[in-house]
Amino acid sequence: MHVISEQRLEDGVLEREFTLGEIPGILWTPASASVSAPVPLVLLGHPPMGLRLVYPRLVARARHCAAEGFATATVELPGSGERPRWPAAEQARADLRRALEAGGPVGGEIVDALMLPLVDKAVPEWQAALDALLALPEVGGPVGYSGGVISIGVRLAVVEPRISAAVLFAGSFVPRAMFEEAGRVTIPLHVLLQWDDEGNDRRAALDLFDAFGSKEKTLQANMGGHTGVPQFAGDAAAQFFTRHLSR
Amino acid sequence: MHVISEQRLEDGVLEREFTLGEIPGILWTPASASVSAPVPLVLLGHPPMGLRLVYPRLVARARHCAAEGFATATVELPGSGERPRWPAAEQARADLRRALEAGGPVGGEIVDALMLPLVDKAVPEWQAALDALLALPEVGGPVGYSGGVISIGVRLAVVEPRISAAVLFAGSFVPRAMFEEAGRVTIPLHVLLQWDDEGNDRRAALDLFDAFGSKEKTLQANMGGHTGVPQFAGDAAAQFFTRHLSR
Repeated sequence: MHVISEQRLEDGVLEREFTLGEIPGILWTPASASVSAPVPLVLLGHPPMGLRLVYPRLVARARHCAAEGFATATVELPGSGERPRWPAAEQARADLRRALEAGGPVGGEIVDALMLPLVDKAVPEWQAALDALLALPEVGGPVGYSGGVISIGVRLAVVEPRISAAVLFAGSFVPRAMFEEAGRVTIPLHVLLQWDDEGNDRRAALDLFDAFGSKEKTLQANMGGHTGVPQFAGDAAAQFFTRHLSR
Repeated sequence: MHVISEQRLEDGVLEREFTLGEIPGILWTPASASVSAPVPLVLLGHPPMGLRLVYPRLVARARHCAAEGFATATVELPGSGERPRWPAAEQARADLRRALEAGGPVGGEIVDALMLPLVDKAVPEWQAALDALLALPEVGGPVGYSGGVISIGVRLAVVEPRISAAVLFAGSFVPRAMFEEAGRVTIPLHVLLQWDDEGNDRRAALDLFDAFGSKEKTLQANMGGHTGVPQFAGDAAAQFFTRHLSR
């Protein structure tokens, strides 16, 4: 992990841009974080639009988490931002765009082609990032995962035992295979659903929530479209992490 | 309104049993409530099982609300507790019991016979209680409604302009006609759904949530059966009232 720039935000949060091999990432730590008082960590997921585009929303979530005493970090997704595209993903995105423009339902094979390779590539990268982040003396556990592509969150919750709670955002296409994986998730979940999300099949989101194996899972549905998550829903998600990650 | 007994609970909450004509009720006010500092009021709905039976859950909700600075009050439902039964309601309850024991679906005519007269009778009584409660110098507005028979909450939200926010509990049979009324609700809503509620049709609960006309409405679904609402869901409901009722 190689820090390439750092700045102190006005609320005392330290923002560090880093690279992990070829992968760009950002780490935010609250002013309170220190070697003698390491803080819990929340991995901030995001849609595959490139870190630069999603930065404003990420930094808002990072500051919210910092106010609760948590470090946060994120890495660029494979095929997004400055990272190299791969042809199959470009093809799948084009197919998706065409299906959406045609107004028809998006076929399972398009969703699979779009999501499954992304999940397969991204998850080991987030795990490698976790290795590097937890090696920092001011960052400790427990670790949470929040938001972004829900299939990545599901896979991480299944395969990464260091993640002990997750806030998932029901807002993207979910391959059928992920419903089976969802049954193997056992950590506490807080699932956000935007009731009028244009890009989201509400019924599928409810079915996925039903499929999660976790004994503690909460669905919080709010009015509005994909990016209209109300402030109080962010507060509720932060409280979920405070319940599960505070030591 | 005639106070028949009062006691101070250990956290300073003043509990007063009263009658309003023939109707028994209970009022809880936080220690902070005074003539010079009147507090907002939350009406506590409850299932038609009689106040004596639901008292333990009611007093817990009352203390939770008092800790947020709110008075709470409840009145006995018509046909419950010590109040006189009426034959049509007894018949409807017997029909419901028979339908549930037979394991079949509960017909719309049974739900209508059970719920519509209850709503028609109860709502004016809660409004009369509200008149009496708001006449007390230590009780002010705004007013919220919380829980209980969801159809009563829906009707109150439509017809009673003094109620400015409601926490509804999706856990009872809902007459078809209430879906139309739900569309006329415009106040902020926080709807609790127990995902595995034996006595509740989850699909109908989601449809009812969808039908509400309110611009701000949140569905919070948690695992567990009818009476298994987790502590943190109570906290979230209290925060909803704090957002909407605090002055």
